[in-house]
Amino acid sequence: MAEEPLVAPIEYEDANEDVRAVYDDIMQTRSTDWVNNFWKVLAHDPALLKSTWEDIKQVMSPGSLDSFTKELIYIAVSATNGCEYCTYSHTAAARAKGMTDQQLMELLAVVGMANETNRLSNGLRPSVDVQFKPR
Amino acid sequence: MAEEPLVAPIEYEDANEDVRAVYDDIMQTRSTDWVNNFWKVLAHDPALLKSTWEDIKQVMSPGSLDSFTKELIYIAVSATNGCEYCTYSHTAAARAKGMTDQQLMELLAVVGMANETNRLSNGLRPSVDVQFKPR
Amino acid sequence: MAEEPLVAPIEYEDANEDVRAVYDDIMQTRSTDWVNNFWKVLAHDPALLKSTWEDIKQVMSPGSLDSFTKELIYIAVSATNGCEYCTYSHTAAARAKGMTDQQLMELLAVVGMANETNRLSNGLRPSVDVQFKPR
Amino acid sequence: MAEEPLVAPIEYEDANEDVRAVYDDIMQTRSTDWVNNFWKVLAHDPALLKSTWEDIKQVMSPGSLDSFTKELIYIAVSATNGCEYCTYSHTAAARAKGMTDQQLMELLAVVGMANETNRLSNGLRPSVDVQFKPR
Amino acid sequence: MAEEPLVAPIEYEDANEDVRAVYDDIMQTRSTDWVNNFWKVLAHDPALLKSTWEDIKQVMSPGSLDSFTKELIYIAVSATNGCEYCTYSHTAAARAKGMTDQQLMELLAVVGMANETNRLSNGLRPSVDVQFKPR
Amino acid sequence: MAEEPLVAPIEYEDANEDVRAVYDDIMQTRSTDWVNNFWKVLAHDPALLKSTWEDIKQVMSPGSLDSFTKELIYIAVSATNGCEYCTYSHTAAARAKGMTDQQLMELLAVVGMANETNRLSNGLRPSVDVQFKPR
Repeated sequence: MAEEPLVAPIEYEDANEDVRAVYDDIMQTRSTDWVNNFWKVLAHDPALLKSTWEDIKQVMSPGSLDSFTKELIYIAVSATNGCEYCTYSHTAAARAKGMTDQQLMELLAVVGMANETNRLSNGLRPSVDVQFKPR
Repeated sequence: MAEEPLVAPIEYEDANEDVRAVYDDIMQTRSTDWVNNFWKVLAHDPALLKSTWEDIKQVMSPGSLDSFTKELIYIAVSATNGCEYCTYSHTAAARAKGMTDQQLMELLAVVGMANETNRLSNGLRPSVDVQFKPR
Repeated sequence: MAEEPLVAPIEYEDANEDVRAVYDDIMQTRSTDWVNNFWKVLAHDPALLKSTWEDIKQVMSPGSLDSFTKELIYIAVSATNGCEYCTYSHTAAARAKGMTDQQLMELLAVVGMANETNRLSNGLRPSVDVQFKPR
Repeated sequence: MAEEPLVAPIEYEDANEDVRAVYDDIMQTRSTDWVNNFWKVLAHDPALLKSTWEDIKQVMSPGSLDSFTKELIYIAVSATNGCEYCTYSHTAAARAKGMTDQQLMELLAVVGMANETNRLSNGLRPSVDVQFKPR
Repeated sequence: MAEEPLVAPIEYEDANEDVRAVYDDIMQTRSTDWVNNFWKVLAHDPALLKSTWEDIKQVMSPGSLDSFTKELIYIAVSATNGCEYCTYSHTAAARAKGMTDQQLMELLAVVGMANETNRLSNGLRPSVDVQFKPR
Repeated sequence: MAEEPLVAPIEYEDANEDVRAVYDDIMQTRSTDWVNNFWKVLAHDPALLKSTWEDIKQVMSPGSLDSFTKELIYIAVSATNGCEYCTYSHTAAARAKGMTDQQLMELLAVVGMANETNRLSNGLRPSVDVQFKPR
């Protein structure tokens, strides 16, 4: 994306205490020495920065689903919505967790298929089968 | 959904040879004795029915990603797009493959989070970090 | 859709002069003796009712594209967006203009395919080929 | 966006009478001496240019909601849809009307939250509470 | 929506301590004696219930934008995404805060307009004007 | 789009037999001597490349709808979804089939209108008229 961001990224040296605390936690959690631009623009609202980071750290941590599967889901949503930044950042994150090109291709094949059949359903409106009803 | 489908479902006994062949393959592949309404409305175009079924059978079969993970991705896309039929059918399919309520909740937590941060990115337009650029 | 509309439909007998004038024009343009619910809820804002109707009458009238093709495009967008009311109303409108079930199926096959390849493109982000650049 | 527009922008000096009349009204309404690119590409269809401009002028003028609130809503929709041009143009318009960075951040926080809970609802499908039913 | 939710709502009497604490806070914050179904299905994941509620309480509280404006933005996003539950619940919430039918109509007129021009931009891809670039 | 694709395009000289067979068929079907980037990134998964190409070749071939109409529908979906690559490639394809600027403008006018009324319907939720119910 060639355009400027809508608000200027806030670098570590220009950040206040609250923002630095989040940046520090991001770098420590990821064992990196840099913070990506998404957080630097979000830093214009320190409360939003903090709650978004804490939510994402919690939601993406392993639970009944592992972190790798969660990254795949993140890519699936981002590709469906057409979010450029999120597609680059979460594809990179999934690769850092070992995702191969073949896995990316299979993931996107499912995403493509789901987007196709979602619209065939939207256009034809079949009734939900009784067998699919919860319990 | 209380409304009628846009085309009447075609039942097995009213289907032609080509359609029955697909219905048979669906039931055999899934080890069931019924075909869900999505395919019965798609049957108005036997070529579309056949190619869609063969694509989905191929795409959803285990490869470098397992079938369970693929079902989760299908739900993620369907919830993002708001497709009611697909949400019911693929949640049922994932449950048949062992998905627990806790896994469904964690899946949707990631879907919700991704939809949120996709829009924070869309609205603020941070530049893609050089570290995220593909090799 | 089983739920009530968010505002009550305004029937002809309860409508003011401005609203009745639009209702009359809708019925005359379509050679029918009834007005569909979309316009009856929009009637809560007579200016919006009037401008929306006049825009749609203008946009859907034959020009360099015929009205039938325009109805197909309307269905394509409505199925992509998952708008239930619009899918029913514009599928009915296209059928009234002669759309066959086979045409509906082919239309939705294209809609499904486009939704699939849109996401394959979103996820893989190929560069726009120089050959595709306008002039 | 680095790509060329799909049709060349039509500059004032190359525009016909109908187009110039709209350009003049845009500049006069906004008290500016330039017209933005959106209108210059739309000018390939003078009737569409005119009706779109008149609709937007009418819809965005103060009524029971003020113009500032309407600009915020425009940004919310544009960020949800991921429209790059619209995000830049309406963020600029809102800033010209006094929107602060803090207001932009709060706006996007709501947009993000709504996009998240929309998908939690889509995936879990709670019934509409009777208390939420219109009158 | 006539279908069952994908997970059964958890009523107060069946909820554990953590869930009851959130339900209590919802009712106290809103000065009501009931909890809407969205939270009752989210309660299957008490951590997600708690963080979603706390985020929404924080995000929707008055700041540089007032709560009423924030509710309008929530409706705008929900209508754009076509989320039925969210449309009913947030329209009801906005009405409880004084939104009139006329305000709802004007809000949706802006939402409709933005969705229209977002697609005219997507299809024609005008360049972002230099005047719109952030400082 | 200034960013690199997420996987490197596979050129003809670097492609394996299966991929070359698809590239050959694409060039022969279109009577061209080049293959566009979409297929070159898809080539990382030869099975997906082959099935996607065969589906699109089948779906876009003339049937009860002609190929030109099908290209218009493809543009309508791509503009609605905001897919940049698809908008450029299918607009170019439609122009190669004779689409004029006026037809493009009329097409997008319908797309814009449909996106607008889809959201007016989503926000007001009128009931589907009995006259619109299929047979």
